[in-house]
Amino acid sequence: MTTDFAATKRMFHLPDGVIYLDGNSLGPLPLAATARVTETVVAEWGELLIRGWNKAGWMDMPSRVGDRIAKLIGAEAGHVVMGDTLSIKVYQALASALEMSDRRVILSDTGNFPSDLYMAQGLCRTLGSDYVLKTVAPEGVVEAIDDSVAVVMLTEVDYRTGRRHDMAALSARAHAVGALIIWDLAHSAGAFPVGVAAGGADFAVGCTYKYLNSGPGGPAFIYVAPRHSQKVQPALSGWLGHESPFAFDRDYRPGAGIERMRVGTPPILQLAALEAALDVWDEVDLDDLRSASLALTDRFIAGVEAACPTLELVTPRDHARRGSQVSFRHADGYAIMQALIAEGVIGDFRAPDILRFGFTPLYVGNAEVDGAVAILSRIMASGSWNRPEFKARSKVT
Amino acid sequence: MTTDFAATKRMFHLPDGVIYLDGNSLGPLPLAATARVTETVVAEWGELLIRGWNKAGWMDMPSRVGDRIAKLIGAEAGHVVMGDTLSIKVYQALASALEMSDRRVILSDTGNFPSDLYMAQGLCRTLGSDYVLKTVAPEGVVEAIDDSVAVVMLTEVDYRTGRRHDMAALSARAHAVGALIIWDLAHSAGAFPVGVAAGGADFAVGCTYKYLNSGPGGPAFIYVAPRHSQKVQPALSGWLGHESPFAFDRDYRPGAGIERMRVGTPPILQLAALEAALDVWDEVDLDDLRSASLALTDRFIAGVEAACPTLELVTPRDHARRGSQVSFRHADGYAIMQALIAEGVIGDFRAPDILRFGFTPLYVGNAEVDGAVAILSRIMASGSWNRPEFKARSKVT
Repeated sequence: MTTDFAATKRMFHLPDGVIYLDGNSLGPLPLAATARVTETVVAEWGELLIRGWNKAGWMDMPSRVGDRIAKLIGAEAGHVVMGDTLSIKVYQALASALEMSDRRVILSDTGNFPSDLYMAQGLCRTLGSDYVLKTVAPEGVVEAIDDSVAVVMLTEVDYRTGRRHDMAALSARAHAVGALIIWDLAHSAGAFPVGVAAGGADFAVGCTYKYLNSGPGGPAFIYVAPRHSQKVQPALSGWLGHESPFAFDRDYRPGAGIERMRVGTPPILQLAALEAALDVWDEVDLDDLRSASLALTDRFIAGVEAACPTLELVTPRDHARRGSQVSFRHADGYAIMQALIAEGVIGDFRAPDILRFGFTPLYVGNAEVDGAVAILSRIMASGSWNRPEFKARSKVT
Repeated sequence: MTTDFAATKRMFHLPDGVIYLDGNSLGPLPLAATARVTETVVAEWGELLIRGWNKAGWMDMPSRVGDRIAKLIGAEAGHVVMGDTLSIKVYQALASALEMSDRRVILSDTGNFPSDLYMAQGLCRTLGSDYVLKTVAPEGVVEAIDDSVAVVMLTEVDYRTGRRHDMAALSARAHAVGALIIWDLAHSAGAFPVGVAAGGADFAVGCTYKYLNSGPGGPAFIYVAPRHSQKVQPALSGWLGHESPFAFDRDYRPGAGIERMRVGTPPILQLAALEAALDVWDEVDLDDLRSASLALTDRFIAGVEAACPTLELVTPRDHARRGSQVSFRHADGYAIMQALIAEGVIGDFRAPDILRFGFTPLYVGNAEVDGAVAILSRIMASGSWNRPEFKARSKVT
């Protein structure tokens, strides 16, 4: 290993007394982001005003930052652009992909993130009754890809279980029957080396506030394979995806390649935070990251299974099928997570019964794993999660 | 007048040597926004991490901030929500409105902002060949609203000319023929008292980075009239518009009322800047604002017309038909604007030949108007705009 994870850890602010195993929900604050956001507000917005769009390079940020994301997801340079939320980008990819097919079936799986399914349901309703979203169990996807399918829409890593799909195999299967495939990389980008080009993705989308540490509500990204990018008709055809936005023509003409997937005015403060957060990745070899992640998840699984027999592992033991998280099932999962958080171990609960722990080698090491195992073991042995204050539900966990 | 505009001016950072008449493109930095954004980054994201969604109130920001916007646009409380970009909100309103009608014609005007037209064109293409966007000249809209029209989609104030539509009259005409009406308030919200409820809007959308000073890429808003908000089927049906987002159900069920128009994870840094920017409005009476705005635009028109005979006024002289900007036409408009900017008077150029000046009483007064008139007069008299450096086009103006 050449990556110095002690050095990357020093690039983040981590509160005292916290073991943070929830970077797969919201990454922590990169120290450089504070100064960068302040500079954007004070020196750029404050002093340049409207001139910031040119002089501070705001207008090009979605492409400039997209090029840095491209390196992390194995995309060809110039084929990723930032903007909107992940749900919007799912919709955009899906509507554009459906327009490239004569078929009307969208295939997904029951492990997909609900918002992806909701956006597809809404699009089907908008398009009319012939369009349908079909969902099967994750393990049944490969058999369900047949020549009725227009578009396969999958999230590579299951947000609850941490199960990872085989991108290359499923993309090949989709293409073999004449379907297109969209990959949601929400739990992949920054979690391990992703290969959208090598893996045959037609479209890929993802968010940046998880493993990429862009902060709450950071912008999403979209990738369109080069074989499609000059001919795809963008759904959500906004002015900044126009060939010449400042000509103010009354008719839409798509911009060059991936630029056409831009929609409206980009969120510059969020992009500034993201751009600073991406500096951390200059120091990281993604293969090192993957090795470290697997070592951490293996260590956590072994520790918890040795000490907590009532927690049922739901994450695959097979490295090839695992993302960068570990999930356990327990009927009292919600209360157990609240008890953990009260002791400074922050993970996530996902309904109905999943305890989810994200492992992010940039700032989590063996000490954090061992500390979390010790605290979880103590909670499970004592039954302390049964207190009323841990069982009362709040809106978000 | 009871509003103290000298006091509101002190709430903004305005760079030395600049007369800023472009707050209708990007409002200047409210001083409180700097501290608020830093607090959000350092104390909330940095210390609370994922807990910020509950403990810092991030999850409720789109509704909480929406309620403050509601007061500025004459909306019923609880019927405005923030998120996405204006183009996305236009699409969402339009797709939802079309679904409420059996008709297939969208009517707009040639003065609408191009992105609104582009989003409608894209939606029509996605929906299929029966759907059509029809555009007429602004003055022909009222006659063109007939019983073939499903949805009338208009921007209240023309981004180039500053011409203001009669919201109440056009809404009434739409309703009389069984059509719905969507109002884009990009150049209205924060520019004068808007009355979406009194004016009969079915949907309204707008951005916040112009007269509301939320900073580059600040989030948009959407209003749905109470008579529709519990039955409208949201297009772009994302997880945060779900009745119970954290149940992670696989089927979409719309949330209560306006909440269903939320889509994905909201941009918290941008919302924080907006929330701080809205504090300025606590000190402002909107009728005072309108009086001051009309006095400023009248003064600017009189000054320019007296000194610059080759500039042709395109903004209506009639107060009832004027927004809060003044536009002049000149074949060399681009170069003239560059010459003005070089002397510290920042306005906008809008292709092909419009010089656009925004008047924002919160921080622009008679001194700025007189200063701008003097500099513009000197440039026009000297012909200094004819220098090559002013004629070379940059990407954004």
